[in-house]
Amino acid sequence: MMTPEGLMPQQRERLSKQLDFLIELDKMKNVYRRTLVLHEDRQENDAEHAWHLAMLALVLAEYSDEPIDVKTVLETVLIHDIVEIDAGDTYAYDTAGNATKAEREQKAAKRLFGLLPAEQGAHFRALWDAFEAGSTPEARFALALDRIQPLTLNYCKHGESWKRNPTATAPRVTKRMQPIYDGSEVLGDCAMEIIRRAVEEGILPPE
Amino acid sequence: MMTPEGLMPQQRERLSKQLDFLIELDKMKNVYRRTLVLHEDRQENDAEHAWHLAMLALVLAEYSDEPIDVKTVLETVLIHDIVEIDAGDTYAYDTAGNATKAEREQKAAKRLFGLLPAEQGAHFRALWDAFEAGSTPEARFALALDRIQPLTLNYCKHGESWKRNPTATAPRVTKRMQPIYDGSEVLGDCAMEIIRRAVEEGILPPE
Repeated sequence: MMTPEGLMPQQRERLSKQLDFLIELDKMKNVYRRTLVLHEDRQENDAEHAWHLAMLALVLAEYSDEPIDVKTVLETVLIHDIVEIDAGDTYAYDTAGNATKAEREQKAAKRLFGLLPAEQGAHFRALWDAFEAGSTPEARFALALDRIQPLTLNYCKHGESWKRNPTATAPRVTKRMQPIYDGSEVLGDCAMEIIRRAVEEGILPPE
Repeated sequence: MMTPEGLMPQQRERLSKQLDFLIELDKMKNVYRRTLVLHEDRQENDAEHAWHLAMLALVLAEYSDEPIDVKTVLETVLIHDIVEIDAGDTYAYDTAGNATKAEREQKAAKRLFGLLPAEQGAHFRALWDAFEAGSTPEARFALALDRIQPLTLNYCKHGESWKRNPTATAPRVTKRMQPIYDGSEVLGDCAMEIIRRAVEEGILPPE
């Protein structure tokens, strides 16, 4: 549709698939998470979240406990929530939603990565599978960032999203943050320090 | 403030600077551009835009006319608008705003990248300088993406942001899109095809 006529038919078809995927991705700007942005009274969306994680990856890469390829971490955090375009965001402490999450996300991954030329779709799919399984150092570090980013924002926002979601308590948040230690001891300790302070300041219920 | 007590003082200071920078970056979610998102009636913000460009970089890297390091392109698009936290977004067709843009952005770059440990700040600053000057293949490809992304969204949104900003005409948009050719002939041709169709469909004034 938007491809130049000067290209060979196969090239046009390839570029057309790539553009369709990239246009479909605009929907990430409309998938809202429970986390609030700091300077407006509204929820963060998946596109903003993924960008913020990519910046964390660039700035905090040195704290990975294992050697990592930073480009792979970047790719992982950039694509890790794309499935939510179809499957929606599932709140960490929503038991019912989490029971059906895997199935919904598998179906979404098939459709969304399937929009791309086969080898590109397979590449992103493999990155997403690794992220979900925590099967590579890059996946483990990406997950650590995915956990510490909302914790940090919640703390900086004086626990506002915890107040709105009363299932969040210090023990539950502590458990949720444990996987950070699989990627980075420093960031794991940092998360524990934030939780300790949040309880001390009365913005996260101790139990 | 949020750093773990187990670290050495110098390590705590370093991590503290990095976290301060990353928290400051949340303001990118509140810098609104003229471009509209496709599925809500609102403007796109800089964080969403940077994420979208990073996805374009991953999917469309093969169309760069020069060999590029994709990680450097990713870093460039992720950080290219950070200065707008202080300097604001300047609309492409705003002559008065563009006259003071460089000075405002230089000051912003100094403050914002200055929040980081020196060598990290210098690294981002060098990437941003290269982007502004178009002095590397990665910078030229990043700029090509930065131009074609809003064009594509405007076209897919049936020219809505052009309607709201009547200074946008086919010749002005065509001129604005010329730098795409410095990064990618295929994407340059793609931009021209979109403009041609936009005029044909009556959503972009021919003059």
